[in-house]
Amino acid sequence: MTLLGGAVTAWPLAAGAQTLHSEGALSSWNDGAAKQAIFDFVRATIDRASPNYVSPEDRIAVFDQDGTLWVEHPMYTQVVYCLERVPAVVARKPELKNVEPFKTVLSGNREAMAKLSLRDLEKILVATLTGMSVEEFNAEAKRWIETAKHPRWNRPYTELVYQPMLEVLRYLRDNAYKTYIVTGGGQDFVRVYAETVYGIPPEQVVGTAGGTKYSYAKDGKPFLTKDAKLLLNDNNAGKPEGIYLMIGRRPYAAFGNSTGDRQMLEWTGAGAGARLKMLVLHDDATREYAYGPAQGLPDTKVGIFTPALYDEAKSKDWTVISIKNDWKRIFVFE
Amino acid sequence: MTLLGGAVTAWPLAAGAQTLHSEGALSSWNDGAAKQAIFDFVRATIDRASPNYVSPEDRIAVFDQDGTLWVEHPMYTQVVYCLERVPAVVARKPELKNVEPFKTVLSGNREAMAKLSLRDLEKILVATLTGMSVEEFNAEAKRWIETAKHPRWNRPYTELVYQPMLEVLRYLRDNAYKTYIVTGGGQDFVRVYAETVYGIPPEQVVGTAGGTKYSYAKDGKPFLTKDAKLLLNDNNAGKPEGIYLMIGRRPYAAFGNSTGDRQMLEWTGAGAGARLKMLVLHDDATREYAYGPAQGLPDTKVGIFTPALYDEAKSKDWTVISIKNDWKRIFVFE
Repeated sequence: MTLLGGAVTAWPLAAGAQTLHSEGALSSWNDGAAKQAIFDFVRATIDRASPNYVSPEDRIAVFDQDGTLWVEHPMYTQVVYCLERVPAVVARKPELKNVEPFKTVLSGNREAMAKLSLRDLEKILVATLTGMSVEEFNAEAKRWIETAKHPRWNRPYTELVYQPMLEVLRYLRDNAYKTYIVTGGGQDFVRVYAETVYGIPPEQVVGTAGGTKYSYAKDGKPFLTKDAKLLLNDNNAGKPEGIYLMIGRRPYAAFGNSTGDRQMLEWTGAGAGARLKMLVLHDDATREYAYGPAQGLPDTKVGIFTPALYDEAKSKDWTVISIKNDWKRIFVFE
Repeated sequence: MTLLGGAVTAWPLAAGAQTLHSEGALSSWNDGAAKQAIFDFVRATIDRASPNYVSPEDRIAVFDQDGTLWVEHPMYTQVVYCLERVPAVVARKPELKNVEPFKTVLSGNREAMAKLSLRDLEKILVATLTGMSVEEFNAEAKRWIETAKHPRWNRPYTELVYQPMLEVLRYLRDNAYKTYIVTGGGQDFVRVYAETVYGIPPEQVVGTAGGTKYSYAKDGKPFLTKDAKLLLNDNNAGKPEGIYLMIGRRPYAAFGNSTGDRQMLEWTGAGAGARLKMLVLHDDATREYAYGPAQGLPDTKVGIFTPALYDEAKSKDWTVISIKNDWKRIFVFE
């Protein structure tokens, strides 16, 4: 339901307007402060008579991906991809077979793999995400994402997107917001499926990005090769920096779930007018996962939500989304 | 005139369809091969019955700016901006007053300034484009672009955009093409006026880009500072690399005017289906400027169009736009 004609409803006679804006939207959300915050924000920014009206071209909303739009436990999907690509890389470069960390990954010993250092992981990412043409990478990643399955649900990772967040994406777009993914994950990786899964085109995916190198094939045809030079580490302060680089405007709405999203929410919140800042708290071990360590939830290495972040959220009037309490339904297949 | 419903006209019965698509568009263009190439390309890519039909989400068109969308002689507008900012920079940092190249710029001696090396110029760019908050930079650049005037026409630089190219931008957008600027100029600089002047929002401006640094003011408010680290040199091979980074898809149409645009046109042309590749040749000293050195035109340091580029254009079926012959009117104020 598109409601660009916000002028037909009178601000601040909000009761009627709100019903209009919210009708049918966010049906997987329970009534509560989180759902209300989304409705209030949209109502305040699309109604021409509102003091916080935002013109359509400025309506930018940014979403972290892992843990915000889809499941990130027990391990980031892209890391699983990279680990599973190792045999193919070693087949092409047999000299890596007995070299760490590739040796450990090939062993399949999950306990040993869990102990790999960040530096080891970086070596694996570089070996599996760079050195090929962009077309080769896209084809490989696409093939994998269409067939790989999550160990807990035995379903494609792309089915493990959060239905309530898909509804937020759609609701914002229906109200002329341009929705972006701003992920610590690889920009190229997420672009492979973002349009199909989230309705977000490649040019609206900002992520950790390496460079490419332009060169010519033997027949003179030019092509781009993914190289190992890191241009944007889209985590922490890298998120507002990446938004400025790739979008060039401050968002009006930002969604995240971990300490890596802190600066993105801070920078969004530092703008004038109504700004929506939301953090997903994973507090539902039964239906999904429970981890923090905020609010006494179990500690984790993947998608850390610290007590300090929780305190900052509370002190700055950010909204914490409780999966347990705010989401009626988590997955579309439920 | 939007003609997404291309299916109503039958391909390849193109005569009728073409009239529909072209009616009223490109009125500042003389009839000829260049105008026809644009019409043919759009007709071939928007008609669902065409073998070269392109779905709307893939319709990406990229435009160099300097010399393609607006005048670049006698000097790139942004370089003029940087030179004119030098006094303000020196006022803030008096220790630069007697240091080269700032000393020469402050002298106002145009002959000496013309002899500054590329390295000198880089020092001036770094001093005038970095080290301030993004808000400060945007405000400064906006103030300047609203008041500075071109020495030949004594009009704001933003009035020296090419009317025929504004018509191409609009015609493509009316046919669901997303139009991007892909400029060797500074991304942040061009974003300041691109929406007003070209109807192109900041997120659709790709240019030479430095990083920013996230930090906090004394009151705890976060802000971004432009820093000197170059992330993307958006010239030559940097253009397709920048397009891949920022847009993530290969364009269907690319417009340029100099050797710095060569790889962008090559990469665009290497895609399947109908691709439009056009180069503006400045061959009209009377109404604008004449420079090459292609086609025996005078040599230049700004916006070089070499004979080799001209030969490549001819051999690869790119279309060369002659300002003299193809443009009925160059500026809107004529």
